[in-house]
Amino acid sequence: MSVGIDESKRVAPESITLTLKAIEQRLDYWLPLSSEREKVSMAMRQGTLAPGKRIRPLLLLLMAQDLGGGSSTTGMLDFACAVEIIHAASLILDDMPCMDNALLRRNQPTIHCQFGEPVALLAVIALVSKAFQIISQAEGIDEKAKNSAVSELAQAIGLQGLVQGQYQDINEGHQPRSQEAIALTNHYKTSTLFCAALQMAAIATGATMTVREHLRHCSFNLGQAFQLLDDLSDGSNETGKDPHQDAGKSTWVNVFGTRKSEKQLREHLDVAYHYFAQACRHRQSTQYFVQQWFEQKLAMII
Amino acid sequence: MSVGIDESKRVAPESITLTLKAIEQRLDYWLPLSSEREKVSMAMRQGTLAPGKRIRPLLLLLMAQDLGGGSSTTGMLDFACAVEIIHAASLILDDMPCMDNALLRRNQPTIHCQFGEPVALLAVIALVSKAFQIISQAEGIDEKAKNSAVSELAQAIGLQGLVQGQYQDINEGHQPRSQEAIALTNHYKTSTLFCAALQMAAIATGATMTVREHLRHCSFNLGQAFQLLDDLSDGSNETGKDPHQDAGKSTWVNVFGTRKSEKQLREHLDVAYHYFAQACRHRQSTQYFVQQWFEQKLAMII
Repeated sequence: MSVGIDESKRVAPESITLTLKAIEQRLDYWLPLSSEREKVSMAMRQGTLAPGKRIRPLLLLLMAQDLGGGSSTTGMLDFACAVEIIHAASLILDDMPCMDNALLRRNQPTIHCQFGEPVALLAVIALVSKAFQIISQAEGIDEKAKNSAVSELAQAIGLQGLVQGQYQDINEGHQPRSQEAIALTNHYKTSTLFCAALQMAAIATGATMTVREHLRHCSFNLGQAFQLLDDLSDGSNETGKDPHQDAGKSTWVNVFGTRKSEKQLREHLDVAYHYFAQACRHRQSTQYFVQQWFEQKLAMII
Repeated sequence: MSVGIDESKRVAPESITLTLKAIEQRLDYWLPLSSEREKVSMAMRQGTLAPGKRIRPLLLLLMAQDLGGGSSTTGMLDFACAVEIIHAASLILDDMPCMDNALLRRNQPTIHCQFGEPVALLAVIALVSKAFQIISQAEGIDEKAKNSAVSELAQAIGLQGLVQGQYQDINEGHQPRSQEAIALTNHYKTSTLFCAALQMAAIATGATMTVREHLRHCSFNLGQAFQLLDDLSDGSNETGKDPHQDAGKSTWVNVFGTRKSEKQLREHLDVAYHYFAQACRHRQSTQYFVQQWFEQKLAMII
């Protein structure tokens, strides 16, 4: 059963716009452009500040609010920026010639096309280390919480996260794969960073281990839904990426077709909503935002 | 004036051997091989555990001891491992085809030659994130110190550290450069990680800001000396790297010759020793170790 949207609980678009602006201003602060000669910092800025959905930092901030923390504090914004910076680094890396060899991202030439491979690579490394530096210096968040956040984010990047996802994708993506194998790759590629975002909100607000466990289940399903949406969008002009990048790949959509994939997506969303409700019993802006967001995107592509 | 070695203050080789063994056992613990199929973890292990000098983690542990901290605690070993892992990641990156395109490192084919470019790249990212994870989980070190260590290490990697050094090296290394420009590149390429190693020892032992400032000056000079030694070794069979990798590059040795470079190296060492003595007034194992180490290496190549 898909949960309908209760109009009265819609998250005000103005509030989202303001939050997005705050995220981008803070990213701009953390990624200054020292001079036009500094190609690496230009690449870091370009890769991160080019228009994007900012879904991960938004989720982090909305969840922090739902859990009763201050989503507008500078420290919480810093956590959100760290997650977005890792996401940006992962996109630059995935686009590299030896990976997906993509030419277009966010409607612009990919970073290695603009700046060359060495600069793109150095920008990835600098972004990853910057994300950890930002967390370690986040204002007004206690020391233990910052260390837990470093640990969560590191886990989402490494062999149990983005690195594993990208490895499986380049290694097995063009071979026939089982439903479970595709789901596992999507888990590493997408769910782990969603998980880090929600966990970091929980860590910063001092949520209980039970809440963190609910959020873990929630983000695993949210990540699957998000990856299915991404696969369903392949070939549409709305992605800002090389069209039909997934042609010949064993994605859910290519193997099981659009209708089954959409059904699967909605099932994952329903499970995610269940855990959202378990984790935040009083405020549910995150869940309502996610519902709105997916309905809007699905309406555009299906 | 070069400081001679007081034989009575030599660091016992057995003590260094034991420390090296402890570092390598702890690296082995942090970089487990899950299965032969896991190419990325194989590359991470190979890049880090292949025989190396381990000079950075050794300096960290010796300095922690000189500053009165327990160098044999697991947490201190973890800090040392994090620094060595970043060093290993930087070597894999610098060897990549789009960087130095090196074939040989530590007498073995470079990581991208063994595992291919995508795996080498993913191993670099996984190693960088693992280093931060290790610091955040280091046993028995207080939370604030762990955050400071994350911040120091991140700074040593990014635009003010290894990334900047590698960028300058590939961009300007093959053009004529001034003495100052070469020293600046060496600062970013080498001194910054030495600096992070000594700062992390100081952070973990709760050293004063004055001590930390002395160690900063010390490591800047130590890094220059180390890079000069590396340049002087180019072409010797002892490096385990592609011989004459620096041919045509504007290194100190290529521009000013062997004799002037050795003189410059000894001047940097003398300044480093001065600051070692300022930082640790009671115990000076680190300084004696460095003296022994450099004399031994210089005797082999000059």
